[in-house]
Amino acid sequence: MSAFDEAMALRAQADGGRLGYLDAGWNIIDAINGGVVMSVAATALRDELARSEGAGSVSHPDPLALSAYFLSATRPGDVRVFPQVASVGRSMSTGQVSVYQDGPDGPIERVRALATFGDLGAASDVARAPAMPDVPPPGECLDAQLAPKHLLPPMMSRLELRLDPSCVGWVFGEPARRGVIRGWMRFSDGRDMDAISLLMAVDAMPPVAFDLGLGGWVPTLELTAHVRAHPAPGWVFVELTSDTLAGGLMEEDARVWDSTGRLVVQSRQLAAVRTPT
Amino acid sequence: MSAFDEAMALRAQADGGRLGYLDAGWNIIDAINGGVVMSVAATALRDELARSEGAGSVSHPDPLALSAYFLSATRPGDVRVFPQVASVGRSMSTGQVSVYQDGPDGPIERVRALATFGDLGAASDVARAPAMPDVPPPGECLDAQLAPKHLLPPMMSRLELRLDPSCVGWVFGEPARRGVIRGWMRFSDGRDMDAISLLMAVDAMPPVAFDLGLGGWVPTLELTAHVRAHPAPGWVFVELTSDTLAGGLMEEDARVWDSTGRLVVQSRQLAAVRTPT
Repeated sequence: MSAFDEAMALRAQADGGRLGYLDAGWNIIDAINGGVVMSVAATALRDELARSEGAGSVSHPDPLALSAYFLSATRPGDVRVFPQVASVGRSMSTGQVSVYQDGPDGPIERVRALATFGDLGAASDVARAPAMPDVPPPGECLDAQLAPKHLLPPMMSRLELRLDPSCVGWVFGEPARRGVIRGWMRFSDGRDMDAISLLMAVDAMPPVAFDLGLGGWVPTLELTAHVRAHPAPGWVFVELTSDTLAGGLMEEDARVWDSTGRLVVQSRQLAAVRTPT
Repeated sequence: MSAFDEAMALRAQADGGRLGYLDAGWNIIDAINGGVVMSVAATALRDELARSEGAGSVSHPDPLALSAYFLSATRPGDVRVFPQVASVGRSMSTGQVSVYQDGPDGPIERVRALATFGDLGAASDVARAPAMPDVPPPGECLDAQLAPKHLLPPMMSRLELRLDPSCVGWVFGEPARRGVIRGWMRFSDGRDMDAISLLMAVDAMPPVAFDLGLGGWVPTLELTAHVRAHPAPGWVFVELTSDTLAGGLMEEDARVWDSTGRLVVQSRQLAAVRTPT
């Protein structure tokens, strides 16, 4: 079983919640990657929607849009996920989901999200889409695993990441300050990406703030992702950009193309940055 | 009292909800404009957050991020708004809010939203921001009021809209098909924009689908807005763009600058379009 599938394995609880477990291998520094938490939230909501739609008639299996608000940092350990159906329609269903962890004084909410599910396979025509940038193949990109082990976030043991050489100045202390970071990504254990793991992919690259010379922790306040297609097997290519940084908040946009060059998900997040003082 | 302030006037109800009224003057065709519904939702949540933060200490008065999921079309008439606090922090607070209307078989949920509030006045430095496009002043743009009255959505009696001449081909049956619509906007009754009404402004222009030759109703599934600053008095400039249309869903991005050229809000929505058959 792949590490990601293990992270998505949830057990129904008597209180209507789902119990999951996220190990420290999904950490960025000492908190679980937000993208993985979003994937867990989406998995729980997808299952709850399938249940309410009736056994054998899962018609809305794919996240089309998900908006997650990050209330506190998720730590390695048990997570309790509470999905709730808001509306079930013919072509889409919508619900909300909260992720909690136990604290010393009771449950602490980590993430609350709204999401709409549908069927990505039902309508696959592409009328307009941003073209994938012209970039070198993975073999000609910078392998993130070559960084000193103590500088790599724990989660990088789960992902292969090959950074576009034109955007890696920050690695060597010379950020380009264009607001662009991009590279190829896949699971280390060979699992292919799917609609749910794309919610991880949009939030698993080094933050674009690094390219602006802003280091440290860049906590996400809110992230909304629009999943546009099932990804083909193999690498995905992730491009992060940002053009707005004001009042201590920056926007970070992600676009992800699959190995066939099809746009499969795009997202925008609002994140807090600590500007140099 | 301005028409917009009347729409934002909510009365506390015994059940914890807020009762408001939206008249048909806010309609697009026969449904209330989604931006106005978002503004109502944000107003109710702002008030609820202020109440939970304690009288006299409203520290998070401004919406920083709001994500609205549209479950059904809002009709003219009473709206019942139920805000709920999720977390109260030092610099930000987060909550959720639902908007209902009474239906023949009970309440029908129209919109569910999550939002984070803070203080836009607390940190106003701008490190990076997209520049406002170089466009003609309002007096040299196309006054939307010159259109035949029967073609104007009812809401256009509440707004002055001056469309950039470079993006109005669709008005004359010749859409440019670039995926850009832009123009100046202000309230007809002289009320200035504020952080709450910016949530209306991002969803009140003719949909960018028109510039792609796609007519008709373009219902929003989800819209997330990031408010970045209090707008200066006077006109705001709204630019809509889109580069993704696939599987019957399109993304529409809005950026709004105030009369000083400062970026004050940006948003992205996912909307359903009916492609020509």
